[in-house]
Amino acid sequence: MKIEYSLLKTEKNTKARLGKIKTNYGTYDTPMFMPVGTRATVKSLSKEELKAAHAGIILSNTYHLWLRPGPDVIKNCGGLHKFMSWDGPILTDSGGFQVFSLAKNKEKDITEEGVHFKSHIDGKELFLTPEKSIEIQNKLDSDIAMSFDECPPYPVTYDYMKKSVERTLRWAKRGKAVHNNPNQALFGIVQGGEFQDLREYSCKETVKMNFDGYSIGGTSVGEDKPTMYKMIDDGIRYLPEDKVRYLMGVGDPIDIIEGVIRGVDIFDCVLPTRIARHGQAFTRTGKINLNNAQYKEDLEPIEKECDCYTCKNYSRAYIRHLITTGETLGGRLLSIHNIRFLIKLTEELREAIKNDTILEYRQKFIEKYQTKKEK
Amino acid sequence: MKIEYSLLKTEKNTKARLGKIKTNYGTYDTPMFMPVGTRATVKSLSKEELKAAHAGIILSNTYHLWLRPGPDVIKNCGGLHKFMSWDGPILTDSGGFQVFSLAKNKEKDITEEGVHFKSHIDGKELFLTPEKSIEIQNKLDSDIAMSFDECPPYPVTYDYMKKSVERTLRWAKRGKAVHNNPNQALFGIVQGGEFQDLREYSCKETVKMNFDGYSIGGTSVGEDKPTMYKMIDDGIRYLPEDKVRYLMGVGDPIDIIEGVIRGVDIFDCVLPTRIARHGQAFTRTGKINLNNAQYKEDLEPIEKECDCYTCKNYSRAYIRHLITTGETLGGRLLSIHNIRFLIKLTEELREAIKNDTILEYRQKFIEKYQTKKEK
Repeated sequence: MKIEYSLLKTEKNTKARLGKIKTNYGTYDTPMFMPVGTRATVKSLSKEELKAAHAGIILSNTYHLWLRPGPDVIKNCGGLHKFMSWDGPILTDSGGFQVFSLAKNKEKDITEEGVHFKSHIDGKELFLTPEKSIEIQNKLDSDIAMSFDECPPYPVTYDYMKKSVERTLRWAKRGKAVHNNPNQALFGIVQGGEFQDLREYSCKETVKMNFDGYSIGGTSVGEDKPTMYKMIDDGIRYLPEDKVRYLMGVGDPIDIIEGVIRGVDIFDCVLPTRIARHGQAFTRTGKINLNNAQYKEDLEPIEKECDCYTCKNYSRAYIRHLITTGETLGGRLLSIHNIRFLIKLTEELREAIKNDTILEYRQKFIEKYQTKKEK
Repeated sequence: MKIEYSLLKTEKNTKARLGKIKTNYGTYDTPMFMPVGTRATVKSLSKEELKAAHAGIILSNTYHLWLRPGPDVIKNCGGLHKFMSWDGPILTDSGGFQVFSLAKNKEKDITEEGVHFKSHIDGKELFLTPEKSIEIQNKLDSDIAMSFDECPPYPVTYDYMKKSVERTLRWAKRGKAVHNNPNQALFGIVQGGEFQDLREYSCKETVKMNFDGYSIGGTSVGEDKPTMYKMIDDGIRYLPEDKVRYLMGVGDPIDIIEGVIRGVDIFDCVLPTRIARHGQAFTRTGKINLNNAQYKEDLEPIEKECDCYTCKNYSRAYIRHLITTGETLGGRLLSIHNIRFLIKLTEELREAIKNDTILEYRQKFIEKYQTKKEK
């Protein structure tokens, strides 16, 4: 079976949706935030810690796994679930974003056939095509695969974006043609930057190909917030109601709320784990930085009302000590908290959709989120 | 209360002892291996993982905690147990070993008063004395503190060692005089290198001061194995039966067996966590290196018969992938296994003492430990 999406309810005042995604590795509720396990590991965390954070699904990266350990190793080890010992759902990206972001501008060459670029590990010449991306993902055997797309920088000219959108559509078609894994869903990706007509075109043409779900790409690439939210509106407008919508690479709490209100079902982002390794934690009053000396003897947890393992067991003082001495337990504890923070946020958003109170929820959340007082 | 040691049994054919140590934070059996939590954290592990490995007690480092976060921060946070959220027993070393090993030769100056040296973090001038070491440990509020000693390199002349032993005795006396924590035991340390008469002298004079337990120092500093085992024999011969004996810095499985046979009760070493971060795992047939390509698609656990979390959940192939890509979960999983391996070893040694079969146990263990076949 591929995935099955059920739309349970649309919120009364907005486009926010309550849903359920059934996969071969379990069913989970939407809206949902997906922690990112770049190299088949959500950095420093165990599977039990991800389950305890109520992660319904995790994401892993095709580009990174292609390079190491290689898709054949993972296939020979029984696929990604068995390889990493994770019995929940997994989504893999297409590798496109990493190709465009990790390879320096001069070191990549985009052709109709695919993208020539250099490995970020050893500089080796690599060539990724839509077919290759799907072939790798078929071998990884994730529950949800992504089409290979171009994610242009921001801003680019209308002309460049138009050509890029058209090429991404041809790439989507080529990828879909070779996709060959009966247990794996394949999503199309809507691009088009900030150009409303290109988003519409990308959306309609992608939907014509009848994918199992749709991603909104090309946001969070440097645009301002109003532009980003408009991109989401324009990217969703022509998507079918009965398919999942996935906003790629978005993990800021307010952006998640804005995305859900606009009809997004799932999100992913490295933000919670990346900022954790740098000592930052999400709180209801804003992000705090545990490197800050004010926490040196602070015996409070990061957040008293938080139900995560970290907040139930450790003080800010101890986490600060771990972070400032470079001890990996620090990043681990903050990752647990930050991931739980975003997943709890989606739980509360689901509740607000049930109660038709999502606009009030947004207002209260944003008001409180701006009250942090850090010395 | 300070600690209470009970000698339960001495093995029939050797000096191996079965015992029990009662502390304010719980009672544990000896022989026991203590995982090292250098900076108030056993690198990358949670307290639950240490408990699951059956760690009866952990060690933390006075020198490192003195520098960061500082003893007053830990005191103000309620002491080391509360600071690191560990409710089991803790032993702290004196800082002496780190002063002598971390500071380069030219950057330390040993005087009667103490040791002048430079911080390994920022090169700042520091001065550690017996009184200062005890004062810091009093503030840390560990269950067992160590006297400040000199751990000379190997080899040194008889004359140097004699002077060093005499100074260490004077330092022990000074430290004991200022020790001021009714809930903390204080151990004396036997030095004397490979010189039998100096070990005897150090032993007898230290015992005269009536410490709560005794450590054997100055082994594992470059000497060969027969010399090391003789140092242990000579270091233990004149210690009282009713006090704990602690062999410092020893974590090689065979050395632990040889130490137990000679009457050692507790051991500590960074070895299991340090080699873990480099991809190595203890097994019954010898150490293996997970960086080795032969494990690329190896779906077996590190050891089928091991009861640790890592072996119950993850394959060699996955751990190899984590280690070769620098993912910290790899070091965490191997640390869990390696610590459990050494603690399981002490559990089996306790059983062998009960059954008076420790010599047979040693023979079988060593025979098997040399059969590893790694390509």
